[in-house]
Amino acid sequence: MKKKEVNPESKLKIIPLGGLEQIGMNITAFEYEDSIIVVDCGLAFPEDDMFGIDMVIPDTTYLQNNLDKVKGFVITHGHEDHIGALPYVLRKVNVPVYGTRLTMGIIENKLREHSLLSTTRRKVVKFGQSITLGKFRVEFIKTNHSIVDAAALAIHSPAGIVVHTGDFKVDYTPVFGDAIDLQRFAELGRKGVLALMCDSTNAERPGYTASERTVGKTIDILFQEHKNTRILIATFASNVDRVQQIINSAYKYGRKVVVEGRSMVNIIDTASKLGCLNIPDNTLIEIDQLKNYPPEKTVIITTGSQGESMAALSRMADSTHRKISITPGDTVIFSSNPIPGNEKAVTNVINELLMKGADVIFQDVHVSGHPCQEEIKLIYTLVQPKYAIPVHGEYKHLKAQSRIAADLGYSKDRIFILRSGDVLELNEQRAKVNGHVPVGDILVDGLGVGDVGNVVLRDRQHLAEDGIVIVSIALDSYTNQLVAGPEITSRGFVYIKEAEELMHNARKVAFHAIDECLDHNISDWNKIKNAVRDELGDYFWKKTKRRPMVLPMILET
Amino acid sequence: MKKKEVNPESKLKIIPLGGLEQIGMNITAFEYEDSIIVVDCGLAFPEDDMFGIDMVIPDTTYLQNNLDKVKGFVITHGHEDHIGALPYVLRKVNVPVYGTRLTMGIIENKLREHSLLSTTRRKVVKFGQSITLGKFRVEFIKTNHSIVDAAALAIHSPAGIVVHTGDFKVDYTPVFGDAIDLQRFAELGRKGVLALMCDSTNAERPGYTASERTVGKTIDILFQEHKNTRILIATFASNVDRVQQIINSAYKYGRKVVVEGRSMVNIIDTASKLGCLNIPDNTLIEIDQLKNYPPEKTVIITTGSQGESMAALSRMADSTHRKISITPGDTVIFSSNPIPGNEKAVTNVINELLMKGADVIFQDVHVSGHPCQEEIKLIYTLVQPKYAIPVHGEYKHLKAQSRIAADLGYSKDRIFILRSGDVLELNEQRAKVNGHVPVGDILVDGLGVGDVGNVVLRDRQHLAEDGIVIVSIALDSYTNQLVAGPEITSRGFVYIKEAEELMHNARKVAFHAIDECLDHNISDWNKIKNAVRDELGDYFWKKTKRRPMVLPMILET
Repeated sequence: MKKKEVNPESKLKIIPLGGLEQIGMNITAFEYEDSIIVVDCGLAFPEDDMFGIDMVIPDTTYLQNNLDKVKGFVITHGHEDHIGALPYVLRKVNVPVYGTRLTMGIIENKLREHSLLSTTRRKVVKFGQSITLGKFRVEFIKTNHSIVDAAALAIHSPAGIVVHTGDFKVDYTPVFGDAIDLQRFAELGRKGVLALMCDSTNAERPGYTASERTVGKTIDILFQEHKNTRILIATFASNVDRVQQIINSAYKYGRKVVVEGRSMVNIIDTASKLGCLNIPDNTLIEIDQLKNYPPEKTVIITTGSQGESMAALSRMADSTHRKISITPGDTVIFSSNPIPGNEKAVTNVINELLMKGADVIFQDVHVSGHPCQEEIKLIYTLVQPKYAIPVHGEYKHLKAQSRIAADLGYSKDRIFILRSGDVLELNEQRAKVNGHVPVGDILVDGLGVGDVGNVVLRDRQHLAEDGIVIVSIALDSYTNQLVAGPEITSRGFVYIKEAEELMHNARKVAFHAIDECLDHNISDWNKIKNAVRDELGDYFWKKTKRRPMVLPMILET
Repeated sequence: MKKKEVNPESKLKIIPLGGLEQIGMNITAFEYEDSIIVVDCGLAFPEDDMFGIDMVIPDTTYLQNNLDKVKGFVITHGHEDHIGALPYVLRKVNVPVYGTRLTMGIIENKLREHSLLSTTRRKVVKFGQSITLGKFRVEFIKTNHSIVDAAALAIHSPAGIVVHTGDFKVDYTPVFGDAIDLQRFAELGRKGVLALMCDSTNAERPGYTASERTVGKTIDILFQEHKNTRILIATFASNVDRVQQIINSAYKYGRKVVVEGRSMVNIIDTASKLGCLNIPDNTLIEIDQLKNYPPEKTVIITTGSQGESMAALSRMADSTHRKISITPGDTVIFSSNPIPGNEKAVTNVINELLMKGADVIFQDVHVSGHPCQEEIKLIYTLVQPKYAIPVHGEYKHLKAQSRIAADLGYSKDRIFILRSGDVLELNEQRAKVNGHVPVGDILVDGLGVGDVGNVVLRDRQHLAEDGIVIVSIALDSYTNQLVAGPEITSRGFVYIKEAEELMHNARKVAFHAIDECLDHNISDWNKIKNAVRDELGDYFWKKTKRRPMVLPMILET
């Protein structure tokens, strides 16, 4: 067989377009000559200061500018931070999507909601299978994670092989399907791997992540211990294995199962149809049938494990759920840990449940889906890449993985902590960040994609903290005389009924500012507006030590 | 000696006015016949949805309505959640304040800032000493906590003794002063205690809280291990013992100490003056002197351990600190754990520090100041109260302490989980919640105390999420005809420059709504405003799936 001709000048470019400043918004472009493939296309959840924003998606200008090169999206697994931006990005970069069975099932639900199913080419890939995309061949390798059908990718390029782990853990005794294909990682390592891009989420934690089965045992013990009460279990909708284990225990103890919460219902439906979830006959019942069974013969699997205010469990806790009320004696299990930032919301729900008399169990009924330090070392030792590129995490996680790589003997010039937008060029001879492409957060608010930017966010922040005062006047366009107003009103500043004097005097201040301008024959509206803004701003600060937004509006008659 | 005459009909009332729904805003009234004493007077920090609020203080209407009975404030220790509301409440309830040395020192700083020092009667109380306040005698008992001079109180009333632990831990080897006076707890127990009000903060945690000295050892090891770098340590300003231990290690390793952050400077100054902190000569230097010493011979003790955006460490991390820059090689130690809700803010600061090349140590350099389960059991066993009243915590913490009491043999009718405002009447014969007094959160925003309520907060929330659209028109008051407008502008809704068409059409929609009203001779401005609000609301929802606040303003010419 003739060896492929490789241009020694050509390099592989690895260009992360997101995911390296946060846990979320994972998307990475791989480019070789005329071919680009994109691994994952995730969203990020808004930060606390992104008021009103529904989600954040990556800026894909680079892909749009190189549309003719882009061969497809290759998806590692079905979590939102890996697939959530697809419906938005596909509208601009309409290329085929590749993924394993459940991953594709979840993607298809999403495309259906966005009416993109018919216009998106898709292909389900099996573990061990490869797809050729331009100059790349991408091989899907079985891994374990907190969602079924998670894959690592071996990205074969003329410049060498890059192994991208996706999100993974090493679970020797998984609930569904096989353990991670460590042999394949080893084979690739023997062959020679150019770079390893490995999950950093848990790189600060020593040891190993426990098997998902350990949670099953805990759940089974809890069912054993709470034979006389109704059980409600909140967990992540997408953790199909967790749901499977809850159903197993329910079946074992003769309980009927109700599934509550839209995302939970959707995923269980999809996973069942695809054969990733095995529900014994006559186990699932509808929520309206609950009344036909004694409470101690039922289990409710629900969304809301993160204290999300609109999720089913939160609504049960604050008595706004239409069908299920918490009653004294209920056992509520959180089979989850709070994601950083959600601690208070989760605690609030726990307090509400306890006040309603429920017994709440919220510790040690969960394991992570990401590798701890020893698992990361295992993968490095099997793959033995030339270059280490920690991915999936905030800077502190990437840094923690780079310390692990250093402990394994990697010198600094072989470890790359990249920033989103960096263009890492590499081949067997060398690797170097060479250039930068545009990247950023695109904010999604309702139907608006990108129409809320820094100016709007800054205004929202200002409005949130101090409210707004509006001053309305009408000027005669001929005489430049005040014909009506100033009228003053406010929102989010003070309770007007109890601040009559303040607002009355504010009107005087505004009037005075306008009068001064008109007296001096100032007809430039911007100058009049600025005068009102300045005088009122000073007045309110003096009286209240607050700085409401002051918005003058001038009508012309 | 003649036995005091006790009216068997008289009961002791315990009335918590805050602190039982949250960790914060601790304040409890004790009432017997014509006497009321108040234990602590704390603030709470605003919840995430309290936009723009600086702090929350308790509603003290009950005290104001019973002003002639109130004998004084008795303060357990100098933390904000126990003293922070004093400057506000004293303006309405001007009675003497009692506390131990450092507690009073910190209170006096606060009163000085609020120009209340000269009008507030104060008395410093020693441990073991009692003060008589009307029908009450209050005894101060030495405890240990994360601030020096913390006291438990034995509140002697004709109906019996109530022991209030304040915030405490059992530290057999405290850094400053004596260990908790367990003998006195035992003596009181022998005598007979009516009720125990015990700190619940850590009631979910098994075991014992470690001694403050263990942190000193850790800090010493860290100094030993980082001899060649500058060290920055962030901790709670009020933890004087922690600061003492840092200074001890600095002195031992020949480093000069800079103190940075206003609250840190204030507390260290106060504690030094009162003899609670022992700083060797020539150890403290001014920040401007840092340049005169090699970095590895300096330590910076700083505020910002909770990731507070305006605190010194956060400003160093994001390069906005005027005098100190983080440089590669710096060692930054967080001698603190994130308070629930602050996790993300702390992580952001850690990431920024790491990106600047600092080595960041943020685990296991802290111990709690509150008792774990075994310490709580110890106090119950020494005091052996008739009634158990868990205090200081969210519901889940109070519930956890009540489970401990149950394990110790307390029957349900002897454990009281109170809600703020409950009036618990008790004597040797029985205890019962009998009535409720008004309580609540008073929001402080700038100079405004209580002028921001639910209406304003709801508006701020709405403004934060969707922004505001203002529609301004002028009507002729005689003819009821439109003489100017509608003019439309928005803030926090869309970026107007990129939404010209949307706003242009919105103007048409508004015009149409007004026109319809005027055509039908509607002159009721509220009806016109509602029509504009409805039509524009529908229009924006259809176009953007957002619901901005729509505010019509009508001028009369």
